[in-house]
Amino acid sequence: MSRVSFEEFKAQRAEFIAQEEGRALGADVVLTEDEQKVNQYLMKLKKAELDAGFKTPSQFFPSRHFFTVLDEIKASPLFKLIQKLPKGGILHAHDTAIGSMETVVKATHKDHLWQKGEFGRDDPPRFKFSKTKPDELDGNVWRLVADIRKEIGSEGYDQNIRNLFSLYNKDPLNAYHCINHVWSVFAKIFISLEPLVTYKPVWEEYYYQSLKELYADNVSYLEFRGILPQLYDLDQRTFGPEEVVQIYYDLTEKFKSEHADFIGVKFIYAPHRLGDDAAFEQYMNVAERLHKKFPTFVAGFDLVGQEDLGRPHSDFTERLLKMSPSIQFFFHAGETNWNGYTDENLIDTILLGTKRIGHGFAAIKHPRVLEEIKKGNICIELNPISNQVLKLVDDLRNHPGSFYFSDNYPVVVSSDDPAFWCASPLSHDFYVAFLALASARQDLRLLKKLALNSIEYSAMSKAEKLEAKHKWNISWNNFIDQTVKLIAQ
Amino acid sequence: MSRVSFEEFKAQRAEFIAQEEGRALGADVVLTEDEQKVNQYLMKLKKAELDAGFKTPSQFFPSRHFFTVLDEIKASPLFKLIQKLPKGGILHAHDTAIGSMETVVKATHKDHLWQKGEFGRDDPPRFKFSKTKPDELDGNVWRLVADIRKEIGSEGYDQNIRNLFSLYNKDPLNAYHCINHVWSVFAKIFISLEPLVTYKPVWEEYYYQSLKELYADNVSYLEFRGILPQLYDLDQRTFGPEEVVQIYYDLTEKFKSEHADFIGVKFIYAPHRLGDDAAFEQYMNVAERLHKKFPTFVAGFDLVGQEDLGRPHSDFTERLLKMSPSIQFFFHAGETNWNGYTDENLIDTILLGTKRIGHGFAAIKHPRVLEEIKKGNICIELNPISNQVLKLVDDLRNHPGSFYFSDNYPVVVSSDDPAFWCASPLSHDFYVAFLALASARQDLRLLKKLALNSIEYSAMSKAEKLEAKHKWNISWNNFIDQTVKLIAQ
Repeated sequence: MSRVSFEEFKAQRAEFIAQEEGRALGADVVLTEDEQKVNQYLMKLKKAELDAGFKTPSQFFPSRHFFTVLDEIKASPLFKLIQKLPKGGILHAHDTAIGSMETVVKATHKDHLWQKGEFGRDDPPRFKFSKTKPDELDGNVWRLVADIRKEIGSEGYDQNIRNLFSLYNKDPLNAYHCINHVWSVFAKIFISLEPLVTYKPVWEEYYYQSLKELYADNVSYLEFRGILPQLYDLDQRTFGPEEVVQIYYDLTEKFKSEHADFIGVKFIYAPHRLGDDAAFEQYMNVAERLHKKFPTFVAGFDLVGQEDLGRPHSDFTERLLKMSPSIQFFFHAGETNWNGYTDENLIDTILLGTKRIGHGFAAIKHPRVLEEIKKGNICIELNPISNQVLKLVDDLRNHPGSFYFSDNYPVVVSSDDPAFWCASPLSHDFYVAFLALASARQDLRLLKKLALNSIEYSAMSKAEKLEAKHKWNISWNNFIDQTVKLIAQ
Repeated sequence: MSRVSFEEFKAQRAEFIAQEEGRALGADVVLTEDEQKVNQYLMKLKKAELDAGFKTPSQFFPSRHFFTVLDEIKASPLFKLIQKLPKGGILHAHDTAIGSMETVVKATHKDHLWQKGEFGRDDPPRFKFSKTKPDELDGNVWRLVADIRKEIGSEGYDQNIRNLFSLYNKDPLNAYHCINHVWSVFAKIFISLEPLVTYKPVWEEYYYQSLKELYADNVSYLEFRGILPQLYDLDQRTFGPEEVVQIYYDLTEKFKSEHADFIGVKFIYAPHRLGDDAAFEQYMNVAERLHKKFPTFVAGFDLVGQEDLGRPHSDFTERLLKMSPSIQFFFHAGETNWNGYTDENLIDTILLGTKRIGHGFAAIKHPRVLEEIKKGNICIELNPISNQVLKLVDDLRNHPGSFYFSDNYPVVVSSDDPAFWCASPLSHDFYVAFLALASARQDLRLLKKLALNSIEYSAMSKAEKLEAKHKWNISWNNFIDQTVKLIAQ
């Protein structure tokens, strides 16, 4: 036995690192000369934040709870650059949690809005738009929001609305003591928000404003989940699933006509996994109808809600297998810390042929699942900030995305419910992923790959993808040109 | 395109799960009829704790900081069973942090002990055994511990010693704000403890007592790291590295003669990675001498200290390559959250041919490292509680050990510095590993495999391993017999 020479060792080490770099996500991207310039600048910014974090770990943003670093991140030059970067699409986000809650705040200034119950209670207030005072079934008094607003002051009222529709808290680690607690608050937001946003004019405004905000965040495609709640108007008309999807479709077309470089939107029907068997039959029925009526706009089917508390996926398998084979699945699975419990939803969803996996946080504990993900090119939709806020992981350097990034797993970075944690539509998730999930060695090629993956793993047809890539390429090249100019200044 | 039948799906699912179970650590172990009985009992206890945790996540012990659940774990029937289980050996632990600090508390009752400085200060007190008052170089007053003990009361004094030599804190998350902070307190414990334990009579008592505690915890083999500090006695004699190792050797032989079923001990010389080049030359010199003088008792070489703040491994490579090729390496590597920084020590240590890897927490982010670990059968020494206390991970369900367990990586579970966090020599780490790193499906076969791995991946010779397995088998069979009787009652 003998040891190698130092020269030989250094050569082996360089080769080893080159092999690892060669396996990482984005390693196959070849940068142009201009992209290399942008990359140098990007990596200078990245290295500055990493080096500062390495020196003072308690200050590293992605290791701390997102709520405690929100303002500081906004001032980061790296974050600002990532905001400008054309990030492609969001493939995992939920209907009423994408656009900022400011649209909802504005909605509470509209006429005919009623409120029952007070702010700051465990049981959140209920809202309802109505020409006349709604029925008081439970003895609680409905009051006009306009009157309450006068009483407590308009700014104070708005702030109450902001607090109500956000998980934001200055002291999040003490405010949310466990995963079930934060999920219960999270679920209450959706419930309390629903009658506000399902008022048809607000619904339309909120969706359109969400697209505007996406676009401003340099996101040009959206594939979003929705439960399709019934909408209503002041004339007591109600609107069912097909009509709601039609609203999405029409507004999308309108937005595209006004923003030529915007790629488009697809919708994934995703009702709640807590529903009973009768409700589930209803969901499947709706899914079939939507699939026929909107064969390209409605991309497929999913189930939402906290997996640990919801019904296991195996409860639904028999029914799901009966769905039209042309309906594609985009299942949430493995959004859990448990091992040998809820995480086995991953197995069901893969065997059901899911096209993508929402979260896949627990996939790292399942070697056969990992194999199938690679073999089947099943995209994992990572949502790092969501996973932190909803208490799967504290320090994002421990997020399994690191593993997926390191060995070129098919992944995209998405944002889940950014509005509920005061994040931008996608930039914050890209920022933490780039700093904490990626290796210090991963560079612009990773970000470019993530953008390209969001097109590649979307539900778009081949022709749609071609057009999408073309549009994205133009935006990307503009970004590169502008950044090169900026650096040269 | 069509979907499979429900029957076919169920068959596929069962096969998928069988394949995953077949890949997990311990899947190759075949249980006897009696072992199956013990397994049923073990799994009943495990399932009870998992189910309770699944229902109330905030109460699941391995998700909470070890200090906050220490007393509750001691009452767990699962923990009690794991204590009794013959766990094989500890392959990763440090000289003066294995046995309980009660031995040190007792040592402060000895005559001729002096103290300089007070308890409860940032700068911890210094100790020295001496017939006469030691020199006061810095103006601080040396006082006899016997006098201080009288002054503040004997029990109060003992409690101060316990507090001083432990990281234990009732509110650990607020007490230690970052990894560098907890490491600085941790390092101070070693420094403050050294002149107390390097008093030769205490050194001998502490080591012998550590072996007794290991043995009581049903650990029958030890491969431990030490920095080999200079010992002293009251006659101002000092004892160098060879003499210290000789003490270890002689006491080990004594212990073995008194405990026929104890397998034995080996030592890994592991000086501090913060040393300068001159110190490092000295270390290598000592390593060569020890290797010649104790070719079997001294198993090899390592470096200790916080990797993030220490010198990178590449600083030492050139020198390490010059060491006698027959000296084996057992390097710490990847005890970090960073990715593309300190974690690259993994690459250096693997290329240096390390026989095992201490911690390997970051290996999961390095696909080529993972490959080499499997190919070279390089054992990862996991120390889950240490990683939590020293702030690499909060919820142990996020520990990378889950990944290693799920796909049969060569691993052992060890305990690092159990005395400093008031843990038993090995049972607590086995307990959290079994609940949080393992799948709910992993059973007695995993625990048996971990015990067997601790022999397999030790530095013992083939002949020593044969004897070790023989001894361990007897203990194991006794454990199975006794547990079967217990269950039958």
